[in-house]
Amino acid sequence: FERILHSAGQSYHDLIRLRTNALKDFVDAVVYPGKVAQLQKLIKWASTKKIALVPFGGGSSVVGGLEALRGRGQRAVLSVDLTRMDHCLDLDEYSRTATFEAGIYGPRLEAWLNERGFTLGHFPQSFEYSTLGGWVAARSAGQQSNHYGKIEELLVALEMISPKGELKTLRVPAGATGPDINQIVAGSEGLLGIITKSTVHVHHLPEERRYAAALFPDLQHCVDFQRELTGSSLDMAMIRVSDPEESRLFEMLANAGKSGLAHAFKQRLARQVLKFKNINSGKCLVMLGMDVEEHTARRQDVAVRALVRRYGGFFVGRAAGEKWKQGRFNMPFLRNHLMEVSIGIDTLETATSYSNVIRLHDAVIAALRSAVPSALVMCHLSHSYHDGACLYFTIIFNMSSSDPVAQWRKLKEAANQALMKNGGNMSHHHGIGVDHKSGYQKQNTTANLSLLRAMKRELDPVGILNPGKLFD
Amino acid sequence: FERILHSAGQSYHDLIRLRTNALKDFVDAVVYPGKVAQLQKLIKWASTKKIALVPFGGGSSVVGGLEALRGRGQRAVLSVDLTRMDHCLDLDEYSRTATFEAGIYGPRLEAWLNERGFTLGHFPQSFEYSTLGGWVAARSAGQQSNHYGKIEELLVALEMISPKGELKTLRVPAGATGPDINQIVAGSEGLLGIITKSTVHVHHLPEERRYAAALFPDLQHCVDFQRELTGSSLDMAMIRVSDPEESRLFEMLANAGKSGLAHAFKQRLARQVLKFKNINSGKCLVMLGMDVEEHTARRQDVAVRALVRRYGGFFVGRAAGEKWKQGRFNMPFLRNHLMEVSIGIDTLETATSYSNVIRLHDAVIAALRSAVPSALVMCHLSHSYHDGACLYFTIIFNMSSSDPVAQWRKLKEAANQALMKNGGNMSHHHGIGVDHKSGYQKQNTTANLSLLRAMKRELDPVGILNPGKLFD
Repeated sequence: FERILHSAGQSYHDLIRLRTNALKDFVDAVVYPGKVAQLQKLIKWASTKKIALVPFGGGSSVVGGLEALRGRGQRAVLSVDLTRMDHCLDLDEYSRTATFEAGIYGPRLEAWLNERGFTLGHFPQSFEYSTLGGWVAARSAGQQSNHYGKIEELLVALEMISPKGELKTLRVPAGATGPDINQIVAGSEGLLGIITKSTVHVHHLPEERRYAAALFPDLQHCVDFQRELTGSSLDMAMIRVSDPEESRLFEMLANAGKSGLAHAFKQRLARQVLKFKNINSGKCLVMLGMDVEEHTARRQDVAVRALVRRYGGFFVGRAAGEKWKQGRFNMPFLRNHLMEVSIGIDTLETATSYSNVIRLHDAVIAALRSAVPSALVMCHLSHSYHDGACLYFTIIFNMSSSDPVAQWRKLKEAANQALMKNGGNMSHHHGIGVDHKSGYQKQNTTANLSLLRAMKRELDPVGILNPGKLFD
Repeated sequence: FERILHSAGQSYHDLIRLRTNALKDFVDAVVYPGKVAQLQKLIKWASTKKIALVPFGGGSSVVGGLEALRGRGQRAVLSVDLTRMDHCLDLDEYSRTATFEAGIYGPRLEAWLNERGFTLGHFPQSFEYSTLGGWVAARSAGQQSNHYGKIEELLVALEMISPKGELKTLRVPAGATGPDINQIVAGSEGLLGIITKSTVHVHHLPEERRYAAALFPDLQHCVDFQRELTGSSLDMAMIRVSDPEESRLFEMLANAGKSGLAHAFKQRLARQVLKFKNINSGKCLVMLGMDVEEHTARRQDVAVRALVRRYGGFFVGRAAGEKWKQGRFNMPFLRNHLMEVSIGIDTLETATSYSNVIRLHDAVIAALRSAVPSALVMCHLSHSYHDGACLYFTIIFNMSSSDPVAQWRKLKEAANQALMKNGGNMSHHHGIGVDHKSGYQKQNTTANLSLLRAMKRELDPVGILNPGKLFD
């Protein structure tokens, strides 16, 4: 059980392989170091014996980051489960930073901070089953990253053990001190070393986490609105734009099980009101969140509503927003139930500049539809920046009964090609692992890859750390 | 003339060596490539012939980043002046990014953007004599970085030529695609390659650049205020805190040349008002700047004034702020005049977490005073972050007539030791070069340095690029 659990992550590919007995590679054993000294010993021993080590945090990789691969000439592969190294080390309230051992799970970290009046504010969908070290290693993004930043922006300092010794950075807010080692370790997916500690920004618990929804006539209006709001002085935590397909699904789910005259009347009235605003069948739902002080929430509310109107939208109100907030971690669980009835769900995400969002959106949707013609393909813009946004695609399809793995490969290949041809990167916050490796290597120049591989050769000369992923 | 001009930067150490004929190392020639292809040829040729290349942008390094050093076995050293590669390449208005060749000077870049309604918003004190490539290579910070970000935060994508080929990154807002190559190149100070292009965030020209001043009873009140304001939802461009010594100097300069009964009366009245607020001899001046829309400026003004009061301060008004804004690039020029009358000025800067600001401030001041007892030593907190601030020290002293270089070395050594012992990094935005190299290497672990050096070995195996600086 331990070996199987530690030989796969939570991707659709992992789940179908587990269900169909198609997983071929397993770790030979699982090690649970409890202290840095034990981890150092383990890494030294593995280097000498040529044994591959796959670092394991919450096990929530969706890109094949946990595949039990061994490099050339290696005799075995071990999973290094870091969840015993999960201590809360210190909180500097005045500097708004906290330090944790990297194996700590999201809920434990957040509870410890909450008790002290703080929050990390980092809520990826995997929050309940992922660790701080895993977030940093894969450059995770929380749903409220517009306010708090992606994990690499929340990162102040860290410690990492490599076969060559300990990498360590200072607890300073910024520097002009050479290449940024924090930003080398962030995203290194276990190939350069094993992260043991991280110091991160923390925020006072917001007085208010206010969520609301708005509707817009089409996706272009939403992108215009998202771009404007992200570039404004308003302090938003989330501006989540659903494309027409996803908006339709949310509407269906919201109406499911409701009937009767009153409901029908309300529906009709709503349609009529929206029609006046030219919000019809192509309508898009936007979820708006802010994590701020109560008086700021009230002030911003007025400004956001004005902006919604200016961009042709209709402010729906807070009920829909609150409902989204409650269900926000549920999606991955739903996936397991649907697989029971032979419905597959896979997701993928990318980022691009604002001027390229619509083009990339349409290209990826078209590619996925042509790979699996009967599929329902939808997208939301989950995170936004000064210069662009993250596009998060969900594809729902009838699972192939003959060869679901081949079906998945076809989907994945179609998506990767579409990303590469249309100016998207291979991942915004899931990482590269095995699944995005080929596209990632194509998107880098020869010199980029030489540089990355030289770093690994230096820190891990025997190549024991998570072989076969990312640039390896 | 060309050789001398390209063999030193603008540090106090550079200036005294030039004045006293103490500069020993000169570049053998200056090369002005105009195109990437020429630069590639040059780098290839220099690698074959073992000739050191020192990249030169605006020549404003204040840390010995331009020293004409050659590595072991190298036959000559050339300065590579990049200011012919200064084209404005494109502006993506919708994505708010612009792309330039790296040799472009600040004013030209800013004028090109201004004509199109945009600004980079990056105004380091060296603005008029520094280039985009230099900013990126040394991790520069503009005076309004609270709003716009340091240059490495403004950076979207770049291209760099190394002996091993071209490094290139994608124009995307964020990613989970391995170690961040932008953040490896930023701060690499010419050791890994020569930056040829950068894509950066641009902002619409603000409707208003509003500057104002406030006074506080002491430095601790200022840090409390700066920390609170930086962590709030208010969109500030600058929160510049002067310590008591610098505040006294500013007051003296403001009163210089003013006399008469009316002036004396005004002065007395001001002192009386401040006395009521307990703002006396230890008072500290805070400059506040915002680059925002006019209605936001008005709203934030009210909120900032309330915060000033809450932290025991006194809002002085906008005249002092506007005056500061006008003179903000003048300081480096003043330095040359003072050296004529044997008064030396040097500056240094560092960053630390909020809880450590006062301790580090006091330690560095004490170290500098004990190195040169008669010196006037002062400090301002020039940039602030969620978790800490930059401390910028200025030291004014009687130049030693016998050995000014030895006097400078003593000062520098005292400062570097104080930074290391008290939790400051070796630089916040000036860089490392030669002057901070020893402290920088001490603040990094052996594995950190192995990693950095392996990157250089890979991209520049002969070691021709800016040898003897940073981690080399």
